[in-house]
Amino acid sequence: MIFYFHDIIYNGKNSKNATSAIVGAPAWGNLTILAGQNHFGNLVVFDDPITLDNNLHSTPVGRAQGFYIYDKKDIFTAWLGFSFVFNSTEHKGSINFAGADPLMNKTRDISVVGGTGDFFMARGVATLMTDAFEGEVYFRLRVDINLYECWSKSPYANITCSSYSALAAASSPLGIIGGALAGHRVATLLAVLGGSLLGTFLSEKVILPTLEVPLQL
Amino acid sequence: MIFYFHDIIYNGKNSKNATSAIVGAPAWGNLTILAGQNHFGNLVVFDDPITLDNNLHSTPVGRAQGFYIYDKKDIFTAWLGFSFVFNSTEHKGSINFAGADPLMNKTRDISVVGGTGDFFMARGVATLMTDAFEGEVYFRLRVDINLYECWSKSPYANITCSSYSALAAASSPLGIIGGALAGHRVATLLAVLGGSLLGTFLSEKVILPTLEVPLQL
Amino acid sequence: MIFYFHDIIYNGKNSKNATSAIVGAPAWGNLTILAGQNHFGNLVVFDDPITLDNNLHSTPVGRAQGFYIYDKKDIFTAWLGFSFVFNSTEHKGSINFAGADPLMNKTRDISVVGGTGDFFMARGVATLMTDAFEGEVYFRLRVDINLYECWSKSPYANITCSSYSALAAASSPLGIIGGALAGHRVATLLAVLGGSLLGTFLSEKVILPTLEVPLQL
Repeated sequence: MIFYFHDIIYNGKNSKNATSAIVGAPAWGNLTILAGQNHFGNLVVFDDPITLDNNLHSTPVGRAQGFYIYDKKDIFTAWLGFSFVFNSTEHKGSINFAGADPLMNKTRDISVVGGTGDFFMARGVATLMTDAFEGEVYFRLRVDINLYECWSKSPYANITCSSYSALAAASSPLGIIGGALAGHRVATLLAVLGGSLLGTFLSEKVILPTLEVPLQL
Repeated sequence: MIFYFHDIIYNGKNSKNATSAIVGAPAWGNLTILAGQNHFGNLVVFDDPITLDNNLHSTPVGRAQGFYIYDKKDIFTAWLGFSFVFNSTEHKGSINFAGADPLMNKTRDISVVGGTGDFFMARGVATLMTDAFEGEVYFRLRVDINLYECWSKSPYANITCSSYSALAAASSPLGIIGGALAGHRVATLLAVLGGSLLGTFLSEKVILPTLEVPLQL
Repeated sequence: MIFYFHDIIYNGKNSKNATSAIVGAPAWGNLTILAGQNHFGNLVVFDDPITLDNNLHSTPVGRAQGFYIYDKKDIFTAWLGFSFVFNSTEHKGSINFAGADPLMNKTRDISVVGGTGDFFMARGVATLMTDAFEGEVYFRLRVDINLYECWSKSPYANITCSSYSALAAASSPLGIIGGALAGHRVATLLAVLGGSLLGTFLSEKVILPTLEVPLQL
């Protein structure tokens, strides 16, 4: 699932359009200009529109709400805690994110730590990409959300659970129950089993027939 | 599990009773009065007593500790990061929460992202309800915690793991291992398996007999 | 996995060496001295070096980045939201943490709520210990990370997944699929199954043979 969100930082003059504001700053900073030393210590609270394309003026499908903190003196880096809050015909519910955003990297991964509504109990990884950056007032992030653990709450939840392939060496004592399932209105959790005991008997190939046994009886 | 917690915000005069304080504010705010524009940008740190009923003066069973941020200009909405820290005969350990709280809604769901002690590795959803709201000094939240993923660490952990029923259409390639288990001193994790491969052979009904096979041999 | 990280708080004079800074304070505080009442309300942003031993001058293997908030008036207690960001030959990726840190306790547990890269989708518990504390300028935390839920993304991920033993009473309707697996380049997830339905047929001992069935056919 790919979304964009748009952040317009309050600079003392753009009260009407601003979607975020500096609310914490180090001793050497203030609340209308991002601080020196790569904004280290600036805490920004945001309520940013989420769109399906990269156009700020597209109809929002939800809001990205939470905070980010610039947390490194010698390069731009941030820490994010926020939610995507959806209330559209497409999606209802929220996705909760946390993680480090070394924003000078082309892509950065943060964690999906939970969800509610359509995204009940979801976990996954979201890949961030800076899609636009205009001075210190506007930026746009592209967010590619991959949920690897999904629990179906509603049969109508319109979510996609990403496929996950274990790449462990064939000789490792590893069994996988469950394959990948990407689609609508279904739930999937990939349970990877392993252990010194099980490992003696099972491999990825062996475990699947196990589950077919009833059909053979 | 239902709990209440009580928040008394520092307003410059109630130093003795206050359980929380504004520690971040936007350029147009200050640290003793919640800011205009629906408190957008106010960061509040709290250490609130948790009680089993809605009485502020009941004996606390733990403390709710963390922060909330008001994060919308045109309506009251917040983002929460906090823990329930228990140290009673009933419970020892902590439950960690994160998520969006659109507090004008009657009920709001946030994520249980982890736990320690009795709540070791727990995940779930907590439903918040504003139980009382007095001016801008006191509010009380009712929290109904449902843990759907529980790992028993201690045989004496006094926790309840909530039942979860997948509602996916019967025709979906979905198998469920494990039913629901609500009770004391037991651990349950509902593993939902699925996949294009497994899906060919299995349905929710088929997978259960599989696990009975040993008893038939 | 045991790591140390080192925090040097900005005090107005140590700009060059400081790795963290106060960026939020209550009405009675300021941004260069931690506030009275056990620093209640102080928000500190940090970018601390992670080392493998307790020597501040050892070569860092990564950075601990995020924030902590002092959140109790009558004793030192904090709430943490941060990441370990690795970019070494040993580890690439991040581990995301959240939780309460009652720092006067000898050891404290917080949650590993997710991970990326080598630590893709990991969950676990981290045990913190204050290894040194010098006035209000420097402290060093020892962090013992135990991941109980690991997903192998890369066959070369150099991580250890901790063993987990369910301690539930033998008479409980509990089955465990999967044992413990600690080692390199393998993934393990301990799925604990239970339920009133399964419980009728299965016990911990019964379920393991089930999985061996194919070898007996």
